[in-house]
Amino acid sequence: MDIQIGRGKTARRAYGIDEIALAPGNGTLDPSLADTQWRIGNIEREIPIIASAMDSVVDVRMAVLLSQLGALGVLNLEGIYTRYANPEPILDRIASVGKEEFVPLMQELYAEPIKAELIEQRIREIKQQGGIAAVSATPVGASKFGSVVAKAGADLFFIQATVVSTAHLSPESVTPLDLAKFCQEMPIPVILGNCVTYEVTLNLMKAGAAAVLVGIGPGAACTSRGVLGVGVPQATAIADCAAARDDYYQETGKYIPVIADGGLITGGDICKCIACGADGVMIGSPFARAAEAPGRGYHWGMATPSPVLPRGTRIRVSTTGTLEQILTGPAQLDDGTHNLLGALKTSMGTLGAKNIKEMQQVEVVIAPSLLTEGKVYQKAQQLGMGK
Amino acid sequence: MDIQIGRGKTARRAYGIDEIALAPGNGTLDPSLADTQWRIGNIEREIPIIASAMDSVVDVRMAVLLSQLGALGVLNLEGIYTRYANPEPILDRIASVGKEEFVPLMQELYAEPIKAELIEQRIREIKQQGGIAAVSATPVGASKFGSVVAKAGADLFFIQATVVSTAHLSPESVTPLDLAKFCQEMPIPVILGNCVTYEVTLNLMKAGAAAVLVGIGPGAACTSRGVLGVGVPQATAIADCAAARDDYYQETGKYIPVIADGGLITGGDICKCIACGADGVMIGSPFARAAEAPGRGYHWGMATPSPVLPRGTRIRVSTTGTLEQILTGPAQLDDGTHNLLGALKTSMGTLGAKNIKEMQQVEVVIAPSLLTEGKVYQKAQQLGMGK
Amino acid sequence: MDIQIGRGKTARRAYGIDEIALAPGNGTLDPSLADTQWRIGNIEREIPIIASAMDSVVDVRMAVLLSQLGALGVLNLEGIYTRYANPEPILDRIASVGKEEFVPLMQELYAEPIKAELIEQRIREIKQQGGIAAVSATPVGASKFGSVVAKAGADLFFIQATVVSTAHLSPESVTPLDLAKFCQEMPIPVILGNCVTYEVTLNLMKAGAAAVLVGIGPGAACTSRGVLGVGVPQATAIADCAAARDDYYQETGKYIPVIADGGLITGGDICKCIACGADGVMIGSPFARAAEAPGRGYHWGMATPSPVLPRGTRIRVSTTGTLEQILTGPAQLDDGTHNLLGALKTSMGTLGAKNIKEMQQVEVVIAPSLLTEGKVYQKAQQLGMGK
Amino acid sequence: MDIQIGRGKTARRAYGIDEIALAPGNGTLDPSLADTQWRIGNIEREIPIIASAMDSVVDVRMAVLLSQLGALGVLNLEGIYTRYANPEPILDRIASVGKEEFVPLMQELYAEPIKAELIEQRIREIKQQGGIAAVSATPVGASKFGSVVAKAGADLFFIQATVVSTAHLSPESVTPLDLAKFCQEMPIPVILGNCVTYEVTLNLMKAGAAAVLVGIGPGAACTSRGVLGVGVPQATAIADCAAARDDYYQETGKYIPVIADGGLITGGDICKCIACGADGVMIGSPFARAAEAPGRGYHWGMATPSPVLPRGTRIRVSTTGTLEQILTGPAQLDDGTHNLLGALKTSMGTLGAKNIKEMQQVEVVIAPSLLTEGKVYQKAQQLGMGK
Repeated sequence: MDIQIGRGKTARRAYGIDEIALAPGNGTLDPSLADTQWRIGNIEREIPIIASAMDSVVDVRMAVLLSQLGALGVLNLEGIYTRYANPEPILDRIASVGKEEFVPLMQELYAEPIKAELIEQRIREIKQQGGIAAVSATPVGASKFGSVVAKAGADLFFIQATVVSTAHLSPESVTPLDLAKFCQEMPIPVILGNCVTYEVTLNLMKAGAAAVLVGIGPGAACTSRGVLGVGVPQATAIADCAAARDDYYQETGKYIPVIADGGLITGGDICKCIACGADGVMIGSPFARAAEAPGRGYHWGMATPSPVLPRGTRIRVSTTGTLEQILTGPAQLDDGTHNLLGALKTSMGTLGAKNIKEMQQVEVVIAPSLLTEGKVYQKAQQLGMGK
Repeated sequence: MDIQIGRGKTARRAYGIDEIALAPGNGTLDPSLADTQWRIGNIEREIPIIASAMDSVVDVRMAVLLSQLGALGVLNLEGIYTRYANPEPILDRIASVGKEEFVPLMQELYAEPIKAELIEQRIREIKQQGGIAAVSATPVGASKFGSVVAKAGADLFFIQATVVSTAHLSPESVTPLDLAKFCQEMPIPVILGNCVTYEVTLNLMKAGAAAVLVGIGPGAACTSRGVLGVGVPQATAIADCAAARDDYYQETGKYIPVIADGGLITGGDICKCIACGADGVMIGSPFARAAEAPGRGYHWGMATPSPVLPRGTRIRVSTTGTLEQILTGPAQLDDGTHNLLGALKTSMGTLGAKNIKEMQQVEVVIAPSLLTEGKVYQKAQQLGMGK
Repeated sequence: MDIQIGRGKTARRAYGIDEIALAPGNGTLDPSLADTQWRIGNIEREIPIIASAMDSVVDVRMAVLLSQLGALGVLNLEGIYTRYANPEPILDRIASVGKEEFVPLMQELYAEPIKAELIEQRIREIKQQGGIAAVSATPVGASKFGSVVAKAGADLFFIQATVVSTAHLSPESVTPLDLAKFCQEMPIPVILGNCVTYEVTLNLMKAGAAAVLVGIGPGAACTSRGVLGVGVPQATAIADCAAARDDYYQETGKYIPVIADGGLITGGDICKCIACGADGVMIGSPFARAAEAPGRGYHWGMATPSPVLPRGTRIRVSTTGTLEQILTGPAQLDDGTHNLLGALKTSMGTLGAKNIKEMQQVEVVIAPSLLTEGKVYQKAQQLGMGK
Repeated sequence: MDIQIGRGKTARRAYGIDEIALAPGNGTLDPSLADTQWRIGNIEREIPIIASAMDSVVDVRMAVLLSQLGALGVLNLEGIYTRYANPEPILDRIASVGKEEFVPLMQELYAEPIKAELIEQRIREIKQQGGIAAVSATPVGASKFGSVVAKAGADLFFIQATVVSTAHLSPESVTPLDLAKFCQEMPIPVILGNCVTYEVTLNLMKAGAAAVLVGIGPGAACTSRGVLGVGVPQATAIADCAAARDDYYQETGKYIPVIADGGLITGGDICKCIACGADGVMIGSPFARAAEAPGRGYHWGMATPSPVLPRGTRIRVSTTGTLEQILTGPAQLDDGTHNLLGALKTSMGTLGAKNIKEMQQVEVVIAPSLLTEGKVYQKAQQLGMGK
């Protein structure tokens, strides 16, 4: 499989979601018969879609609404909701500044420290309204606030870094988070990510991950590939990590779901991730378009506020409908961004897949989307390049 | 042929019409000697081009005109022509609403039920004016209205679903259409589609299809790939399904034509489909540009009115000439969208192909069109992105 | 080398000029030492560049100027110069009509018949001013006017069709041109084209061609690929036809040059064609930009005036300098469209090629140009898509 | 590895920086632990980034500032700084002319001869302010001014031509520069370039190069590929030349760094070059955006002033921050063009590379960037094509 880039270097061709399509098989299925149920940690959900831990996507209200609709939303514990008791004026400011003022504003807003009591408060707010309290922190944040999160009664804890590994080297003055120890000590399931390789997925599962997030570089509000050169196209990353999940299951009998995270825009994108082997997906920008989204029509990456190397950018997304329209329909747009669950069920019906497990087995073809005019047009319009 | 996407998944590279071109051989031919005749069911036609069963493309008048010119048009039995006795004001409304109002309007218009008497009336109108009455329904519609269609004296019956299979699983409360039984019981030829694989093509032919429609996802007004992730590039789909036709013919002596459907814009696209193995093509948007087209300069997909998951979009197509100019010339545009028959005959002459059978054997080269500036420009202009 | 498009069809990957680049070797050369001389028929030229037989590019004056500068221009014998004694007002009209009126105007202008006396007159005008009289006709035109051309004292006769072959099938009422007989009977060298394959090149050489034109579909003002689906990317076509030339030379001792024709814009494009094996190039649009060009800032394809299937389009090209600046410099533009000879000599120096024969042997790499931003930008600007 | 372009020609697929991405391995690293130190000639630097010898990028002040920040800037000895005692009004003129006047103006400005005393003065100015005096000339300039440069006390001497070779053929009247002799006689390290192949890299190292510059054709202000057809995509060129360095080191024990030069815009681009095997990079346009850059928001190639064949173009680059922000941060932009050192260290941390040597070994994947919408958008905006 190795291709020679030059005398001193070989590389593997990796494939992105835009480069593949799903091919029907011999049978079809009424969409009503497609079962999309899945389980993450000890929680069962009807919809294998998680809203990203991004301030423009998930606040307390969104987390509750997503839970009620059968999905899940993750609250970022290191963003503005745990720095400011009242985030509304903060969100107004973010939405009002010009393109050039955005990075400095975010750097200023993040100068305010994270408060343990606000972490507890947000988790309690979600629980009190009947929501599933899924929260997220970086490894450093997890070290600091893990016990607060556990005490406050959260249901799921996501630890996310651009790239997470069980072999992190820190300066001598710093004790890095021992992921295995953390997973063992936390009373709630811990989801780890992001990674893109078979080996790291296996390592994270052995460390005790309740699920593994897959995806580095592909997100719309993520600029890791431009800034760091780092990124693995999602179709390949998912297939590799799903293979690790299957091997781990063979060995241990434990089935640890793999969640595709980043760069997904349409229902078709979600279907393709599952067809590559994912059990669920984590999406940001599609939900940032919901009327209920806290971003006020904007969406930004969580790496943005870094004081020295901001990554992730703020993009304008228009509000196109309610969360319900986006997640479970009925759709009022025909471009694949409304009724994501309906799209998944219809795709499964079209492909003859009765459940997520069968959907992971459907045939994939390599079919570069840039070569079809419709896709170019669609993307161009999404990007504001068309008329 | 399998390419590894990742450890857990292999895929095949599939090719689209835009990625191939036709290469001349050793001989050439005067275009007047190129014989384009073909046969579908028991009907012989001079032109292997069928107008799609889309409301913006084929009404009674277009079906008659297309028949007179040597081609064929298919009337959609589940669109507005069988819901409304007078479709003209309905078409006016569709053409007048803004982009955002389109999907809700279509959902509203489709709330009106289909009327059996209008089905009969439309078929009779076509026959009375000397046209070939080719009509189309979904499998569900075929169950309901099959006998009405037969009684009214239609000539050809198309059953079309996004993906059709002979192994459809329905909820227990529903009896799915048995395609084989239906074909056997209908007194007229039944054309089935769409499909994209060798196996399903064989199954549909065994079920009694008089022709098979090939193409999932490629149409200009179709958003299946974006919404569902489903789609197989046309060059590959046609070649696979044509191989099934040839094998079926070897086994049974019955020659069942394969019709490429979706995403074709120019004469060159039509030529390329036949060169990949198609016997004929079904096209929508090129005819939506005719002065006689009912769409009033608009074109929209038939999946659009779905109340929960609209797919297919309305696109603005300008009216560029008469149906005759578009189909048989003389052309007044030099971009391949006028005189489609002339283009086919000239291409056959250029390639030395005396008939459709020889045209199916001409040499194809893989030559991605995005890499040539002319094509980028042409597409960009069609898409309204140029100046 | 064959790639499976689908079960019923294999294809070969063909490469365009935009997909390759030239790689330096171990040595370099002062550009002044690069020898670009070549021979076509019995004529020796300093510059291996021929101006296309297009009305917007070559009139009598341009043919003379090109001869004086060391190159060659071919006069189209079936365009307006042989239909109208005074072409100036005709050219004015062509330059003044709108986009929609262009095709009908050309169809009207071509209703005027070609006049033998104007053919003679144009050839004499070129000769009297000291130019090389190279003229061009279609096979049909060659049948009719061959003897007139010979009598008038032309130096080179080009017979060009979209696709030429020695095995052309005509209606019984028509006697097709026998190319071998024609070449034998003409007292002047006859150049034949266009073709794209090894076999046809060999056949044309055996028929007596003094040179063979290579290229179908790639030209900026050519829409054969869109209209007919026909076209072979130039790098592959040239390499194949050059192989036929080399084999023919091995067998017969006769060296018949191969001329790349179509789609070339910059000096770099010319260099790449020679590196693929061409002996010379024929270019249109770069010369249409000359102040002396008859097109008045427009450029159009010669297939345009077809009454039933116009192909080839009129494009706006700005006038950027004198013919001398474009051909031999000094350049006032830095985008590769000025000083084409200087570009060729500098490229040969950079690559260490002392003459055309060595330039045909330099290393080529496959390096898709769309993947470099500079090229996208450059093309976008040429196409009027940038700001 | 060879691909057949046509019967007469094979080629190798070469890869560009935009076509690859870096894949994380099993370990990660705190960015503070990433050691970016390298050595060129006898000079050790913290940052493996060199500012290009271009008039819009490096003047005396920039050379000093870059030295102070831990990097390096090279002063062009054949541009305006050694032709004009006071370059400020010259730079003002260059920034003020229109697009069409640029090439003629540059040709006029270069009519003024280079002055030996200005060469000495510029070198002394840099040294007096504590900077590292790295200067650059063409082979012809090196012949003429080598001794002046040595006498003035420069630290590093770069000899750069579009393509440099140790086997250059000159007209008899000219004695070409003997690179080996020159390197031996110069009392300071001599860096040679540009080249793109294993063989030439080896030859240059044997000739005594203290470092080798790799890159032909990829630069933003370079039009070699358009004008000459010449260019090798950078990922392949770097990997090939790095292999020569490693083999030379094996044989001789001398480690001669390889520097990637041209076409690099973001931190990610720099990371990818090192991952392909480069020891350092030379960049132009990113520094042309610095407030301190002499180009006044413009950037132009050094091949531009050629009187007969200008290459390289002037492009508008906006001023986005201070040199410090661009080189070492903190960043105020999130697109990868600020804090290039931070990006490199963070990338190394993400990939688990402790130093440049380990960074050269990280895993590369082939992942065409045009296929991701974010990259298209980002590039489109950089190019001024978006909204």
